[in-house]
Amino acid sequence: MPRPTPRARDTPADAAMIATRLTERFGLTAPIVSAPMAMVSGGRLAAAVTAAGGLGLIGGGYADPRFVEDAFRDAGNAAVGVGFITWRLDGDDTALAEALAHRPRAVMLSFGDPAPYAERIRAAGAALICQVQTVAAARAVHAAGADVIVAQGTEAGGHGAARATMTLVPEVRDAVGAEPLLLAAGGIADGRGLAAALALGADGALVGTRFWASEEALSHPRHRAAALATTGDGTVRQRATDIARLFDWPAEFTARVLDNAFVRRWEGDPEGHRAVAAREAEAYAAAFRDGDPDNVGVFVGEAVGLIADAPPAAQILQRMVREAEAVISGLGQKRR
Amino acid sequence: MPRPTPRARDTPADAAMIATRLTERFGLTAPIVSAPMAMVSGGRLAAAVTAAGGLGLIGGGYADPRFVEDAFRDAGNAAVGVGFITWRLDGDDTALAEALAHRPRAVMLSFGDPAPYAERIRAAGAALICQVQTVAAARAVHAAGADVIVAQGTEAGGHGAARATMTLVPEVRDAVGAEPLLLAAGGIADGRGLAAALALGADGALVGTRFWASEEALSHPRHRAAALATTGDGTVRQRATDIARLFDWPAEFTARVLDNAFVRRWEGDPEGHRAVAAREAEAYAAAFRDGDPDNVGVFVGEAVGLIADAPPAAQILQRMVREAEAVISGLGQKRR
Repeated sequence: MPRPTPRARDTPADAAMIATRLTERFGLTAPIVSAPMAMVSGGRLAAAVTAAGGLGLIGGGYADPRFVEDAFRDAGNAAVGVGFITWRLDGDDTALAEALAHRPRAVMLSFGDPAPYAERIRAAGAALICQVQTVAAARAVHAAGADVIVAQGTEAGGHGAARATMTLVPEVRDAVGAEPLLLAAGGIADGRGLAAALALGADGALVGTRFWASEEALSHPRHRAAALATTGDGTVRQRATDIARLFDWPAEFTARVLDNAFVRRWEGDPEGHRAVAAREAEAYAAAFRDGDPDNVGVFVGEAVGLIADAPPAAQILQRMVREAEAVISGLGQKRR
Repeated sequence: MPRPTPRARDTPADAAMIATRLTERFGLTAPIVSAPMAMVSGGRLAAAVTAAGGLGLIGGGYADPRFVEDAFRDAGNAAVGVGFITWRLDGDDTALAEALAHRPRAVMLSFGDPAPYAERIRAAGAALICQVQTVAAARAVHAAGADVIVAQGTEAGGHGAARATMTLVPEVRDAVGAEPLLLAAGGIADGRGLAAALALGADGALVGTRFWASEEALSHPRHRAAALATTGDGTVRQRATDIARLFDWPAEFTARVLDNAFVRRWEGDPEGHRAVAAREAEAYAAAFRDGDPDNVGVFVGEAVGLIADAPPAAQILQRMVREAEAVISGLGQKRR
């Protein structure tokens, strides 16, 4: 793993801080990594998270080299990382090469076998972050040499699987031992969640939905408005969004989105959906670009119920750290 | 809510303690309530949890008055509570009357509308504990006068729903305000989970699977052996167990069990299963009584992956509290 590269940041000198092995290893002031949300985590968001003391990750997602190139340009000189959907690299890894040329701080791989890419990523000086949804996968990525393991619970937005953060994090910790850095992902949107993640044995949190609703995110304002009006009861894991976009996702993964008219129309009828998906793909893409909140998938997690605004990413990060500090201080009062 | 009734306990004077509003209100030394697991939480388990400083709940479950009577007898004079599956009381509440005659410390209602029973329970001097799986239901039971709200995540064993503990607990706290006592349920089997529950804003934890694997539980030793050999990846939410037992559960609830041959045989074929369920019901019940781990539902949560033994309940409780104390102490070191 590369050495930490501490640098001046735009946080005030009296800013809240929580120090963990993650912050030490990466030279951060907050144990927070922003999730590489496909088509949402552009260079501005990643750079803002890094500037605020966390580690920002560009959402390389479906491995479009153009998106990656634009995002690194928008990130400027900020020390950011990038994440990819692993099975999308298996056919064409041009986007990974594009990303590595920018000397990213870290590369995160999710949803597939990271082993074919591990050596190349680490040889480029990037930390290898591997996201998993099961204990079995955690063991596999540990064996493949992951520098950081992300245990992602079912409450997360977007693609994921069935296990919950609350049990997956401590069980992964027990399975891989004390040494690997471990992040909790799924359902963490405030300081309570951050403190809980640390209590479960994580060294920090990977935060998606909370940054999806930030000023710098590329999420559509109409999608944000729909999401912020919903409680956490209003999301669902489903596959209709993959059918609509003609993506051949492995069967073990589903995607959490708002439970809207689109999902209710199609989730129960995958055969009928497949029959029309190709000819409706362009209309779906256009509706997504327009921010239609009803007829496309709006990719957010259960944590949407804990979110009421979309401020700058730096503010989100500082708020989470301050709240976590207060929570930890409060817990200390409960010991007798 | 009844006054706390502190009493001498068999815990050593130097025992670990975590004090919360729950422990203060109920006169406990640990913020731990044992889940009223149907056919598993008998009087011995409930009494052992209470004796160790927690609050033990008898599993009134499907409202069989005979089970309730036997369990209260086995609990002796211990100050225990009892839990019921609410929709089962709606037809016949004899078992509730039987339970109230024993002056329980608390009555917990799950899976249905508690309002018709609230006044009667509180008039009998018992605290009303209501378990919910959504924010919407939390608001409803708060309005119905719940003394304690249990926010149960999908990682829990047995019946439950889709939302995860990590987001449900803080969102319920925000929805009902600071005043109501709140327990986290689902995925809590060690001190890390207990500390995380408190960080999320709960006043304590409702613990199921961890006590399912205890010396005093009525779980079958063969079921325990099968469960302890499984990781948390090996459980699944399903409905086949309800079809097999001819129970008419509301559609919003599923049950988490080990992912075994029985589940794989029937979960994908509910129609075929219903066609044979009545004539196979007796064989299913017999196989369950025999502890067959493959051909019946084994009701455990994802936390099974965190459990490696089945010691006395008192030992489980003390271990959780000591570990939570160490976790909280460790968190305090991370603040800068």
